[in-house]
Amino acid sequence: MTSTTHASFIIERRYQHAPKRVFAAWSDPQAKRAWFVEGEGWDIRSYEMDFHEGGEEKSSFRFVKGEETFGEETLFSNDTVFNEIIANERIIFTYSMARNGARFSISLASVEFSAEGQGTRLVFTEHAAFFDGADGVHMREAGWQELLLKLGDHLDKQGFGQ
Amino acid sequence: MTSTTHASFIIERRYQHAPKRVFAAWSDPQAKRAWFVEGEGWDIRSYEMDFHEGGEEKSSFRFVKGEETFGEETLFSNDTVFNEIIANERIIFTYSMARNGARFSISLASVEFSAEGQGTRLVFTEHAAFFDGADGVHMREAGWQELLLKLGDHLDKQGFGQ
Repeated sequence: MTSTTHASFIIERRYQHAPKRVFAAWSDPQAKRAWFVEGEGWDIRSYEMDFHEGGEEKSSFRFVKGEETFGEETLFSNDTVFNEIIANERIIFTYSMARNGARFSISLASVEFSAEGQGTRLVFTEHAAFFDGADGVHMREAGWQELLLKLGDHLDKQGFGQ
Repeated sequence: MTSTTHASFIIERRYQHAPKRVFAAWSDPQAKRAWFVEGEGWDIRSYEMDFHEGGEEKSSFRFVKGEETFGEETLFSNDTVFNEIIANERIIFTYSMARNGARFSISLASVEFSAEGQGTRLVFTEHAAFFDGADGVHMREAGWQELLLKLGDHLDKQGFGQ
């Protein structure tokens, strides 16, 4: 018998950039790739994003730093579908993660952007079903914590203009 | 600005029928239609289901009993995608609901089937994001409570054979 574990988490972040600039880092394929998939310790095998409702984002990668844990033969993949997009306000997407082709989680994620002073308050909410041998919610939340930090670094490097 | 509300609920049910019979009531389009969309008070405008991973189920309907609340011009629609199917064990699907074409919720739902004696323990878990003017989690949970009762009635009518 298979097993299924359900879990949710919410991460709230503030960025010193207007909502339209933060949203652009999610909607522009080049910007998204820069903070979402690139970075030390990752070996990106493929990445493509078609950012519109019903469109898909697909990536596959190895954790180079994680060889002790995952082994160099382990290929991870992320298949995302964008369910709803409201520019500068909300993105809702569904994604599944697989290890060597075996799906180990399916998630519903929502990203909400709102203006706060000159900056943006971002709320990331994920509900996930984890299957046998899945990474589990703590590692998943840690992964998104890191990604949302990388998003901030990416925005800061782009500067504070319009 | 739009608003988004996140909510989850779990419903657990027991049926006096084996998992393969309960699962069949979800996987067979005729059976699914019988308990999922038909019934007093519903005016079904369209229904189709393609039950495989990546396949869709689409329905549109009016609540005839609810004219006071919803108005006779109100058309609801449910667009579902099946994300994962393990026969007799687990179904995971994503669905959005719309009122006259305006989407008001997106959900991740999971149905788990396990044998318990001669019968089945079913666990239904839904995580939903509700948008402006959405029905909200209490009405949604009540809707699934009713559907899962209808599923039981449907199974009982089919009898207790293999």
